[in-house]
Amino acid sequence: MGISLGVNQYGKAEVRMVHVDRSGPRHRITDVTVTSQLRGDFAATHETGDNSAVIATDTQKNTVYALARLGGVGAVEDFALRMARHFVDGFDQVTGARQEVAQHSWERIVTSEGGEHDHAFHRGSGETRTTVVTKTGDHEVVISGISDLVVLKSTGSEFHGFPDVPYTSLVETDDRILATAVTARWRYLGTDVDWDKAHGSVRQILLDRFALTHSLSLQQTLYAMGEGVLAAHPEIAEIRFSMPNKHHFLVDLSPWGMDNPNEVWFAADRPYGLIEAAVVQDDAPAEDAAWAGIAGFV
Amino acid sequence: MGISLGVNQYGKAEVRMVHVDRSGPRHRITDVTVTSQLRGDFAATHETGDNSAVIATDTQKNTVYALARLGGVGAVEDFALRMARHFVDGFDQVTGARQEVAQHSWERIVTSEGGEHDHAFHRGSGETRTTVVTKTGDHEVVISGISDLVVLKSTGSEFHGFPDVPYTSLVETDDRILATAVTARWRYLGTDVDWDKAHGSVRQILLDRFALTHSLSLQQTLYAMGEGVLAAHPEIAEIRFSMPNKHHFLVDLSPWGMDNPNEVWFAADRPYGLIEAAVVQDDAPAEDAAWAGIAGFV
Amino acid sequence: MGISLGVNQYGKAEVRMVHVDRSGPRHRITDVTVTSQLRGDFAATHETGDNSAVIATDTQKNTVYALARLGGVGAVEDFALRMARHFVDGFDQVTGARQEVAQHSWERIVTSEGGEHDHAFHRGSGETRTTVVTKTGDHEVVISGISDLVVLKSTGSEFHGFPDVPYTSLVETDDRILATAVTARWRYLGTDVDWDKAHGSVRQILLDRFALTHSLSLQQTLYAMGEGVLAAHPEIAEIRFSMPNKHHFLVDLSPWGMDNPNEVWFAADRPYGLIEAAVVQDDAPAEDAAWAGIAGFV
Amino acid sequence: MGISLGVNQYGKAEVRMVHVDRSGPRHRITDVTVTSQLRGDFAATHETGDNSAVIATDTQKNTVYALARLGGVGAVEDFALRMARHFVDGFDQVTGARQEVAQHSWERIVTSEGGEHDHAFHRGSGETRTTVVTKTGDHEVVISGISDLVVLKSTGSEFHGFPDVPYTSLVETDDRILATAVTARWRYLGTDVDWDKAHGSVRQILLDRFALTHSLSLQQTLYAMGEGVLAAHPEIAEIRFSMPNKHHFLVDLSPWGMDNPNEVWFAADRPYGLIEAAVVQDDAPAEDAAWAGIAGFV
Repeated sequence: MGISLGVNQYGKAEVRMVHVDRSGPRHRITDVTVTSQLRGDFAATHETGDNSAVIATDTQKNTVYALARLGGVGAVEDFALRMARHFVDGFDQVTGARQEVAQHSWERIVTSEGGEHDHAFHRGSGETRTTVVTKTGDHEVVISGISDLVVLKSTGSEFHGFPDVPYTSLVETDDRILATAVTARWRYLGTDVDWDKAHGSVRQILLDRFALTHSLSLQQTLYAMGEGVLAAHPEIAEIRFSMPNKHHFLVDLSPWGMDNPNEVWFAADRPYGLIEAAVVQDDAPAEDAAWAGIAGFV
Repeated sequence: MGISLGVNQYGKAEVRMVHVDRSGPRHRITDVTVTSQLRGDFAATHETGDNSAVIATDTQKNTVYALARLGGVGAVEDFALRMARHFVDGFDQVTGARQEVAQHSWERIVTSEGGEHDHAFHRGSGETRTTVVTKTGDHEVVISGISDLVVLKSTGSEFHGFPDVPYTSLVETDDRILATAVTARWRYLGTDVDWDKAHGSVRQILLDRFALTHSLSLQQTLYAMGEGVLAAHPEIAEIRFSMPNKHHFLVDLSPWGMDNPNEVWFAADRPYGLIEAAVVQDDAPAEDAAWAGIAGFV
Repeated sequence: MGISLGVNQYGKAEVRMVHVDRSGPRHRITDVTVTSQLRGDFAATHETGDNSAVIATDTQKNTVYALARLGGVGAVEDFALRMARHFVDGFDQVTGARQEVAQHSWERIVTSEGGEHDHAFHRGSGETRTTVVTKTGDHEVVISGISDLVVLKSTGSEFHGFPDVPYTSLVETDDRILATAVTARWRYLGTDVDWDKAHGSVRQILLDRFALTHSLSLQQTLYAMGEGVLAAHPEIAEIRFSMPNKHHFLVDLSPWGMDNPNEVWFAADRPYGLIEAAVVQDDAPAEDAAWAGIAGFV
Repeated sequence: MGISLGVNQYGKAEVRMVHVDRSGPRHRITDVTVTSQLRGDFAATHETGDNSAVIATDTQKNTVYALARLGGVGAVEDFALRMARHFVDGFDQVTGARQEVAQHSWERIVTSEGGEHDHAFHRGSGETRTTVVTKTGDHEVVISGISDLVVLKSTGSEFHGFPDVPYTSLVETDDRILATAVTARWRYLGTDVDWDKAHGSVRQILLDRFALTHSLSLQQTLYAMGEGVLAAHPEIAEIRFSMPNKHHFLVDLSPWGMDNPNEVWFAADRPYGLIEAAVVQDDAPAEDAAWAGIAGFV
């Protein structure tokens, strides 16, 4: 039985870059973490250590910076596409590329003297905007997303009606805290998209549906969020969620003669529920390969 | 030579609690992490395992929840004082307490249907509001603070004029990115304070001074921030800062014939500069013991 | 165009369990983190909030503990298979399960009085032993692995011969530090395996090949490691690696008239190279679905 | 009321360095993280941005590397002393220095071909060896330590006899799991010490006492550990501990008719007990200033 090289890719991970647009006195900053990976004819370095085809990972890092200088960053989807095209279109041995970008949020400092400052910023929430662009020859797939959008409802969430199978002790409830950190990724059908506008719209729909859906299960909330996105965005083929159920347990104060009318909660770390699901446009073509290697998405 | 027990304290660390104020349809949530520690006559458990004086750490945890049920949480300083008084005033063997509270920020979700939601929230920035209350007998010291307020200026920062001592290779600059994660802790002279109002005011002054000071060194920026706080707040005796200089290095694109007019930066993780300093009211009494054990403050 | 539920699974993540085998005075401890996920006919909870088919995630957590009590833990592969069979074979609505277990290492404390202690332990390295069992109906796939096996060679590593494409500035070297954190996952062809013995053997081969291969690229080292495993283990169909190139940069001391003959290195955090590849038995059937959702594996 | 600069220090934090001793074919590696901080006459940079006295933090970083090249690293205590003396003795404006070093453990890979490899290593446990050297003029204080030595006893630990004060619900036990992550720091009386030998001896005593003490409280175990160290090491003035009580809760399986004779445990993350105490030689002089800013030590 023979042994050989299977699927493979290589590159530079987590290139940290801050780009400052200084075209006017009101600076704009774009803070991203870029992971560039290439696929293609790289058997030789694996099998014999012959690196004659290997575009160094250091070079991939430099390319991030150079492309940012040449055309700015812009929407992360556009930047990832530019990276992918640079490599796939520019080098024979590169047959595919996977470019992942995470964007970290900054907001302008509002000073007491006079509104938003031109060049001073503070970090926003831990939420990040993400994209994974996979390009195989001429075929480009863009999967954008949001990570770590942490949300909580202090009421409007029930959970009951589950079966009493062996090892079940959970008590049914018609009023609990529902909290999660939304990681969502949605796949666009093409690349002719106003990325910033679409991102903003999807984000608002996710928040709306989380807030406004009376929840009977986190699954139901998840589906409502996805259904809302797809209904409003025909350019999106599917959206996948990985949502922890960040448990909040009502503290039992009865040993000391006290009630606790859903006021005092213990916020647990681990374990947590984990709900993962896709919501899909029925007639959109699948792109399983583009999802490979994305943690936490079935 | 004899051996004996020295300074000591014990308690429960990182009690995670979310309190929901449901007094009206518009819920308010307070999300805190509490660490309760007691000091006093606890030699017996150390020396012989006699626990007859030891208020269990589990009991300290329960007390966090019970006091929250009895009086809500309110300002974290008030809650920490209530915890400290419960233990120091209530038990003979407890001669002192150290209560630390970190508050995590949440903001209301603004839905597209109708403004701020009554009971749906998303996490704010990673910045936390902190307090450390130390009570020794009747003597109470409140040190409040902010942690991880990450700020950045894309211009308005210089660094030059440092001496060319051995092993110096840093190049002088008159335009750099200045970025830091502000951890500040300030000590109040008493406990008759509008804590929420003071916190908001100090936070705004810190942001103002960071944004509006043309910086010649991170030390200068730090001092301006502290001076601003003390000038406006006579009820604050001192403020201490621990501020990393989160280096952003201009990428050298000249090998490929490209300039880089302060546009494309590499954001480094480690090492980082670290500036720590106190700014003090000249005639305020010192309280060194209250600062013991707070990481990163000389 | 219709919208519907796509692929989905749900369960309890990161159930922390320590099992103590007290069958003799010499205790044995097994420390694991278990993530249980179920697949099947769960459309109702997503679409209408009807939970009548939903085995609660709390029940899945309880099942981890109950099965450990009933039969111990044993090899993590066996435990994951028992979990998967409990759910898939026991409930009509469950058509598949994914059970992931990570085992944390402990070593006996060796006291100065008399060798290994019977019931006192210290944590070993950060390396973890992992398994992901996917069961779909009767079809069971076991992918075992090692995470965070951090290794370093202080010589015996070269990197040169790469092409001078645009944005290349890396200097060729014939002597560098090679360091990585091996994450490897290998897929067994069946389930009739001595799991512990196989794990130990694979681990030793990985270490041997890392240490004994004169490296011309991290890719070459990776392939040698995988080839070694497959050559010795016909019961393994493929092995996949995700290996960061943890860069160590030689410090330039020449500004101060000092040489640096590969002695003093800066260990960088980010960015890092990232090499991912599979090594496969040529005629083994593929099992792409079993790899879905495993981070960092193409 | 005037405002002025209080205590302050500045420097470079977390300089990552790997030193390779290549004096023979059997390489030795020393992997450290160094934080260098200087104290002295630095009011000008704070007050006016005049940097003429400021030894750049970049220079402090370079000094770490240069001193390692000049004399190797050796024991971390010696290296920290060399750093401190370089700055305090070499520069008029520097009146004090604080040098902190953490050493990360590596072990030689044992290959199946022939024992320990000459230049291939794997990371050891997460335990680190630490030192904090504070030099003020000619006065040098060395506080060495161990961090994150995680230990567990599966029996031989009781906890009972604590008072039933309000909000107490903890159940007494005569057999529990006792687990902690030992962070210990001990202060030497001088600098004429065989640092490596002392470190090894202290570490063994800590493990011995943890393993061999039948525990009635974590406090008792802590004190026994400290008493053992001081009894054997007259050159150590005091030792301070910060030890979390990493709770393991016995899982209640009785709802399903199963017993649980201390076999199946839930390992909790937060909250955790936290025990902090010093054990001291009675007649040793105090050095409170040297402990300032070390997290988690009263």
